[in-house]
Amino acid sequence: MSGTLYGIGVGPGDPDLITMKAYKALQSSNVIAYPAPEVGDSLARSIAAPHIPDSCREIVVRIPLDPKHYDDRTAYDRAAVEIAEILRSGEDVSVICEGDPFFYGSFMYLFNRLSEDFNVEIIPGISSLMACAGASLTPLVARNEVLSVLPAPMAEEKLREQLSQTDAAAIIKLGRHAPKVYGVLRDLGLLDHAHYVEHATMKNQQVRRLQDVDPTEVPYFAMILVRKDGVGK
Amino acid sequence: MSGTLYGIGVGPGDPDLITMKAYKALQSSNVIAYPAPEVGDSLARSIAAPHIPDSCREIVVRIPLDPKHYDDRTAYDRAAVEIAEILRSGEDVSVICEGDPFFYGSFMYLFNRLSEDFNVEIIPGISSLMACAGASLTPLVARNEVLSVLPAPMAEEKLREQLSQTDAAAIIKLGRHAPKVYGVLRDLGLLDHAHYVEHATMKNQQVRRLQDVDPTEVPYFAMILVRKDGVGK
Repeated sequence: MSGTLYGIGVGPGDPDLITMKAYKALQSSNVIAYPAPEVGDSLARSIAAPHIPDSCREIVVRIPLDPKHYDDRTAYDRAAVEIAEILRSGEDVSVICEGDPFFYGSFMYLFNRLSEDFNVEIIPGISSLMACAGASLTPLVARNEVLSVLPAPMAEEKLREQLSQTDAAAIIKLGRHAPKVYGVLRDLGLLDHAHYVEHATMKNQQVRRLQDVDPTEVPYFAMILVRKDGVGK
Repeated sequence: MSGTLYGIGVGPGDPDLITMKAYKALQSSNVIAYPAPEVGDSLARSIAAPHIPDSCREIVVRIPLDPKHYDDRTAYDRAAVEIAEILRSGEDVSVICEGDPFFYGSFMYLFNRLSEDFNVEIIPGISSLMACAGASLTPLVARNEVLSVLPAPMAEEKLREQLSQTDAAAIIKLGRHAPKVYGVLRDLGLLDHAHYVEHATMKNQQVRRLQDVDPTEVPYFAMILVRKDGVGK
């Protein structure tokens, strides 16, 4: 009988924002796997660190951080082979994921390689979306409003269209795309409706009005929340 | 010195899907408040039940469940007055919220009435969005795709437009609007891309292919997840 592949969301950064279910699953894990940059530490592992047993065997999936190289999938191919071998031996493997495994997560690349052959269980995590809303005291969306999650790398014209047609938006993966996003929000008269959050719930969390942000110095882990209408009372 | 108003997300249903931060906050709460229907139990309270101290004072905010009466806000007015009095006395109040407080949550109505006068802190929760994706083993969204959260009560034409212009969608608050949603998805050729989940992570959770669902018998706490493209490997 093969083991189960667990996709465990460990939340946005604050180690206390892990669920009790994820905590228990980590405590009883014999093998964990996680993504990491080519050099340096894994964010997912650092969030989960207080909860990982010393005896745990660890598989580090080193992937290029530069989005241009995301299509180089050999790292996932190799990791999937290694994980499949362990699952076939009857042992479970827990893949730990920052945020939620199925919300823009790299877990999907392992999931796609392994879910046909093995039992998979997901433990959802707090995503950056909810973390940023909480950190900035900004309700994301209410009643029957539409919420759009918009990755900043998209073309300017598409971003403009998407923002025009929604009630609320979270613009993610800002980084070097922030000046473009800033310009579109300004053109649409939405600057006053926008909140900026970087590194939500981490020690270096920043919450600012968008007008106070230098768009040329925005990290990848930053988000702009926009809501056209207030909730009203 | 006034107390702090806490908005605590307790997650989608499984009591273990509460964060450690929310668990600790509940354990040390002297006063909690939560929404409930006019008659019967509060879903938020039932999720948090294992974590609520016996000594806790409880404020039940009874609100009409029928969405047509959401605009009757006197219940929130009354609750805000009661909570403000406690905060002014220096005691904290924890409002417990199913899912996440700022994602289509009724917490916003209390937040809007109290946030100008009192310190507020949010503890984010696992939303139904991530719970449904995990339950149905369906990645929500990947890479630079757009994700739209679409409340089913919207007009059919608007739903059609929104679905045409996005890469992935979560259609929420289905209930009696399910037949309309089903029709739009069929017209757009998206039935094969749609997964249906009701009562995610609860004991009566149901995960089905949309084709196997009778659209005339769909509860309010049900969601359809749509993703146009697979992730690819």
